[in-house]
Amino acid sequence: MKPVKLNADIGESFGAWKMGLDHEIMPYIDMANIACGFHASDPDTMRQTIQLAVHYRVRIGAHPAYPDLVGFGRRSMACSASEIENMVLYQIGALDGLCRAEGARVSYVKPHGALYNDMVANPEIFSAVARAVKAYNPDLPLMTLATRETAGIQQQASEHGISLLFEAFADRAYDQDGKLVKRSLPGAVHHDTALIIDQATRISEGRPLTASDGSELFLQADTLCVHGDNEESIAAVRRIREVLASTGRTV
Amino acid sequence: MKPVKLNADIGESFGAWKMGLDHEIMPYIDMANIACGFHASDPDTMRQTIQLAVHYRVRIGAHPAYPDLVGFGRRSMACSASEIENMVLYQIGALDGLCRAEGARVSYVKPHGALYNDMVANPEIFSAVARAVKAYNPDLPLMTLATRETAGIQQQASEHGISLLFEAFADRAYDQDGKLVKRSLPGAVHHDTALIIDQATRISEGRPLTASDGSELFLQADTLCVHGDNEESIAAVRRIREVLASTGRTV
Amino acid sequence: MKPVKLNADIGESFGAWKMGLDHEIMPYIDMANIACGFHASDPDTMRQTIQLAVHYRVRIGAHPAYPDLVGFGRRSMACSASEIENMVLYQIGALDGLCRAEGARVSYVKPHGALYNDMVANPEIFSAVARAVKAYNPDLPLMTLATRETAGIQQQASEHGISLLFEAFADRAYDQDGKLVKRSLPGAVHHDTALIIDQATRISEGRPLTASDGSELFLQADTLCVHGDNEESIAAVRRIREVLASTGRTV
Amino acid sequence: MKPVKLNADIGESFGAWKMGLDHEIMPYIDMANIACGFHASDPDTMRQTIQLAVHYRVRIGAHPAYPDLVGFGRRSMACSASEIENMVLYQIGALDGLCRAEGARVSYVKPHGALYNDMVANPEIFSAVARAVKAYNPDLPLMTLATRETAGIQQQASEHGISLLFEAFADRAYDQDGKLVKRSLPGAVHHDTALIIDQATRISEGRPLTASDGSELFLQADTLCVHGDNEESIAAVRRIREVLASTGRTV
Repeated sequence: MKPVKLNADIGESFGAWKMGLDHEIMPYIDMANIACGFHASDPDTMRQTIQLAVHYRVRIGAHPAYPDLVGFGRRSMACSASEIENMVLYQIGALDGLCRAEGARVSYVKPHGALYNDMVANPEIFSAVARAVKAYNPDLPLMTLATRETAGIQQQASEHGISLLFEAFADRAYDQDGKLVKRSLPGAVHHDTALIIDQATRISEGRPLTASDGSELFLQADTLCVHGDNEESIAAVRRIREVLASTGRTV
Repeated sequence: MKPVKLNADIGESFGAWKMGLDHEIMPYIDMANIACGFHASDPDTMRQTIQLAVHYRVRIGAHPAYPDLVGFGRRSMACSASEIENMVLYQIGALDGLCRAEGARVSYVKPHGALYNDMVANPEIFSAVARAVKAYNPDLPLMTLATRETAGIQQQASEHGISLLFEAFADRAYDQDGKLVKRSLPGAVHHDTALIIDQATRISEGRPLTASDGSELFLQADTLCVHGDNEESIAAVRRIREVLASTGRTV
Repeated sequence: MKPVKLNADIGESFGAWKMGLDHEIMPYIDMANIACGFHASDPDTMRQTIQLAVHYRVRIGAHPAYPDLVGFGRRSMACSASEIENMVLYQIGALDGLCRAEGARVSYVKPHGALYNDMVANPEIFSAVARAVKAYNPDLPLMTLATRETAGIQQQASEHGISLLFEAFADRAYDQDGKLVKRSLPGAVHHDTALIIDQATRISEGRPLTASDGSELFLQADTLCVHGDNEESIAAVRRIREVLASTGRTV
Repeated sequence: MKPVKLNADIGESFGAWKMGLDHEIMPYIDMANIACGFHASDPDTMRQTIQLAVHYRVRIGAHPAYPDLVGFGRRSMACSASEIENMVLYQIGALDGLCRAEGARVSYVKPHGALYNDMVANPEIFSAVARAVKAYNPDLPLMTLATRETAGIQQQASEHGISLLFEAFADRAYDQDGKLVKRSLPGAVHHDTALIIDQATRISEGRPLTASDGSELFLQADTLCVHGDNEESIAAVRRIREVLASTGRTV
């Protein structure tokens, strides 16, 4: 069993506007999902974020999104499959272009926000994203949601000639299918640090979570998504890192 | 002496808006300067333009610009050198990302509009663009204006570790330094086809032009810029192609 | 019975990109739905379009849209009701600002594309648009789709303190509820001029159409939507204008 | 002699990105220069900012800018005079549209960033902005920089049929002409609170400042520009407000 990695959405500033404590979280994560200019970021921010990732030897992933800066990529848009395929290729390429200036390369892809949710819910959109990843570089894994049953999506990825990375969340409640409980529902987001650490440890050790209907839920996750929004979330990331390290779950 | 190549700005549609007779000019050119989404184009248009270039075995160049869709990249912007370096890297990478889906690659870089003019006029901006090209791929030549004296810019490119492609214009008047006469001045743009063909032939054969002050002007050009704006310009391109072919100046 | 008016979407160029034969259609219409910069247009295009409308004494309507230039406002976006209310206010105000420079004023509102469709389908979105219109100027009517039953939407508008203008289409097929047949279905768009003229005349005279299921469909329309996309559509507009004029249906 | 007013740039958040302590500064200022979506802000942010201004009975001014979100309107752009005139009209109208929903109205205009600097330096750009203000509403004063000699600009404004509001800065060094010392030069920005308060008091009382060459500089200012960037600048605003109140310089 491979140790879980910690990934975080990074580089989400835009021009004069700052967002996220990138300098504080980068030392504690393994994988940085870097915004590509469609929901956040700009070429200068991308360059600086890549430099920071390189400094801490963090893997760089492209974090493509719908073209919606003002909505931060959180609003679903009725884009066609080919529009999605091409916007993902554009964004991976743009980030990889800036990576070259720092001797780095994009090494995986994780869609952002509404595009991520739409990809998980809609096989046509999954397929569009998968085609983009395959066309860019079939060696890049695509990160998606670890759910109860992953055979179907594994099969779909395999048909597209790409591999997957499954991610789980330490701070989100799950339903019995292993889907995230919607943020609009009560209890969707955990705020208690002990609970977050427990959930991280369970996921890391392959032990079951308790789903929202009380059933046991096993998730096989390659990576845990953590957050650098504020000091509390940074503290949680540090704590998760310590616990996982002590149990031998991360490198 | 190598034959001159014909290059054209291509793929300048944007979303629902069409611009340029790309299908009509593509069969007659050697190099397509493809817009990268900052002054024109979008991921879908870029993909279709790459497909068209691949179909006609035309070399693909990145045509990066200032971030100014509404101004079509024609308005100079007071960007810093690092902003320019990073926006050029972003745009080359984005186009190259889409190229991969068609088995193609970006093989040179030509800045667009105001960024091109600013690069020719301002060594700091030339240097910023050159750094981007070098970082992306030092084998990509940078296309710039063929003027009377090119030793200085050759030296500058050499110091940056990149090579240059010099382009000349068949339909523009030149001053005695080999700079283009400003469009706002009378006689800046040739509309007479015979004059355009004559200028194309002279440039191609290494014979002198007559500068705006009456002096002889020798330009050493690797490529001629032609235009696909309308039926007249397409006709001129066809005619230039025929004449150059008959004189053995192009492949 | 009031004569029907002809309305058209106008001013949909953007920067260097031209769209639509605005100069050719303007003499034949009564109402110009002018793009406000979110799906098309820019301040200069808006100013020129207003000048053209003023020249031909055509009423000016705001044509607000989702913020999606590259998708031309045709892609539905999951915006909140308050986002929609505020984006509509912004766009009406922006157009009205430019109107003042030409001694004109916005005199009605017609949402564009996906926002129009979403407003027709979703009462919350209708309500958001209605609140914006009411807040801007309760004397501005809101243009919406004429369907079989309009009592519900009339009631809703009345509760919001605004009035409605119902529009019908001469070149679109209707289902039995008076909704437009989706463009993706066969027969959704009429291309036969005689059919288009017949449908325009029927709508204008209050005679029934034949819905897609063969049933009779009565539509009470204040205005017919016509198109200035190309020479054929201009010819159809001229013909509709002549026929309606001969039957006394327009001023 | 009228008491000086305090004005501040407000409402410069954008979508998910927050900027400025608007809630903390609003109680202490008289005039809010509200961003209009071209360099910062969006319709929702504008609406919320207007609500805040209305709550504290602060006058609302339009703060139009070049179309450059990623550069925050700080980069000069080579726009034509008519482009500037129309973009200013668009932005005033958009803000005024949102004001109507809160029972408020735009009551003055202050260009932002590079557009402000270009307007002060270039009479053609001043003229373009003045035409926009005049066309929108000739009763709206235009805010510009108080310099040593203002007769020329007063004359120019008068010819355009508009009035001016002169603003001065408590935290910036001035040269002998009453122009701001460039930010790139040493001593351009005052950081010492005592110095800032002293300069505010001098401007308020009509007493001379010491220009960068040591000469006395009299500025006739209607308003002082203050900043809500951070806690220090809020503290300075409070202190300026107290001092001016105690000397009877503000209402």
